[in-house]
Amino acid sequence: MVLIEFSMFPLDKGESLSPYVARILDVIDKSGVNYRLNPMGTVLEGNYDEVMEVVRKCFNELEKDCTRISMALKMDYRKTGESRLDTKIEKIESILNRELRK
Amino acid sequence: MVLIEFSMFPLDKGESLSPYVARILDVIDKSGVNYRLNPMGTVLEGNYDEVMEVVRKCFNELEKDCTRISMALKMDYRKTGESRLDTKIEKIESILNRELRK
Amino acid sequence: MVLIEFSMFPLDKGESLSPYVARILDVIDKSGVNYRLNPMGTVLEGNYDEVMEVVRKCFNELEKDCTRISMALKMDYRKTGESRLDTKIEKIESILNRELRK
Amino acid sequence: MVLIEFSMFPLDKGESLSPYVARILDVIDKSGVNYRLNPMGTVLEGNYDEVMEVVRKCFNELEKDCTRISMALKMDYRKTGESRLDTKIEKIESILNRELRK
Repeated sequence: MVLIEFSMFPLDKGESLSPYVARILDVIDKSGVNYRLNPMGTVLEGNYDEVMEVVRKCFNELEKDCTRISMALKMDYRKTGESRLDTKIEKIESILNRELRK
Repeated sequence: MVLIEFSMFPLDKGESLSPYVARILDVIDKSGVNYRLNPMGTVLEGNYDEVMEVVRKCFNELEKDCTRISMALKMDYRKTGESRLDTKIEKIESILNRELRK
Repeated sequence: MVLIEFSMFPLDKGESLSPYVARILDVIDKSGVNYRLNPMGTVLEGNYDEVMEVVRKCFNELEKDCTRISMALKMDYRKTGESRLDTKIEKIESILNRELRK
Repeated sequence: MVLIEFSMFPLDKGESLSPYVARILDVIDKSGVNYRLNPMGTVLEGNYDEVMEVVRKCFNELEKDCTRISMALKMDYRKTGESRLDTKIEKIESILNRELRK
């Protein structure tokens, strides 16, 4: 299972990016892959090929009408098949013995 | 105002990183800077120097007993002084006219 | 054409990572895709699918014997079909009218 | 000693970014900090505060006339005081027993 965090946006459309980010989130939300949106990007969880296929679809969506696109992505793979989308945060909170802002 | 998303962890402590991530979150949580934790990192909001000072404190915390440390950070600066920690997500949801997973 | 810069390493093998980085560079070097190695990662150039296929092969190489793998990747897509692997640097040098360290 | 790789550019100036990248490289080149430019960013080497001070100066340079700025940065800290700007690549080439493209 991999967790990725990524963000993607056009560089040729000025500084108001939300219409493009919304198109990407529409692709992600309809992909069926488990995800969490944060203020700086989206975290996806699944196997490597599954998750990277969603990223490719997001790229294909922007490629339609954008001439320059930037993406930043980081990945954390762990051999275990268990989901860490919620447990990673819970573990930190349990060590610190208090709730954190999410 | 800048938003940053970052994650930091030691490379010399094996693959169980949560005790180190917890120490970083303790620094962040006590810093007074506004933040949101996600499964792959933490988003901080503030002015550039304020936010980077928290990142430095996190580094200094790990530096105490770690011999190799990795960090990934991305930043989004906008001249406007308004907080975007919640509004960036709300804007996307309002365009798509539905709630997304956070 | 896209340019990507990426780095990938195991988290379960201690802090000496060069044998693993060497295996990745072997995959890249034999892929036929145009690349440049730097002290923090490798820049690949090609079309999206071609370049991402090399990244997948690097992941599959490490996945053989690593239980936790971290990756950071950034991408710059431009619609134009021209190579920018050398011209991006040349352009900066020409604007500054002096040579920079590469 | 830390190695960082970073890139920074405005989002409000259209897709031709080289004049802005040139201003950043001018700051870096004049900083006295050891660096290497690659097609996707710049690698800096020094102690944490020294290197981050250069990044701050680059931000201050763009902040003058840019209303939205994006940055991606990754860091590799190693306790040892030895420079790795050239040795990291040499080590990989020595393991593979051949020269790689740089």
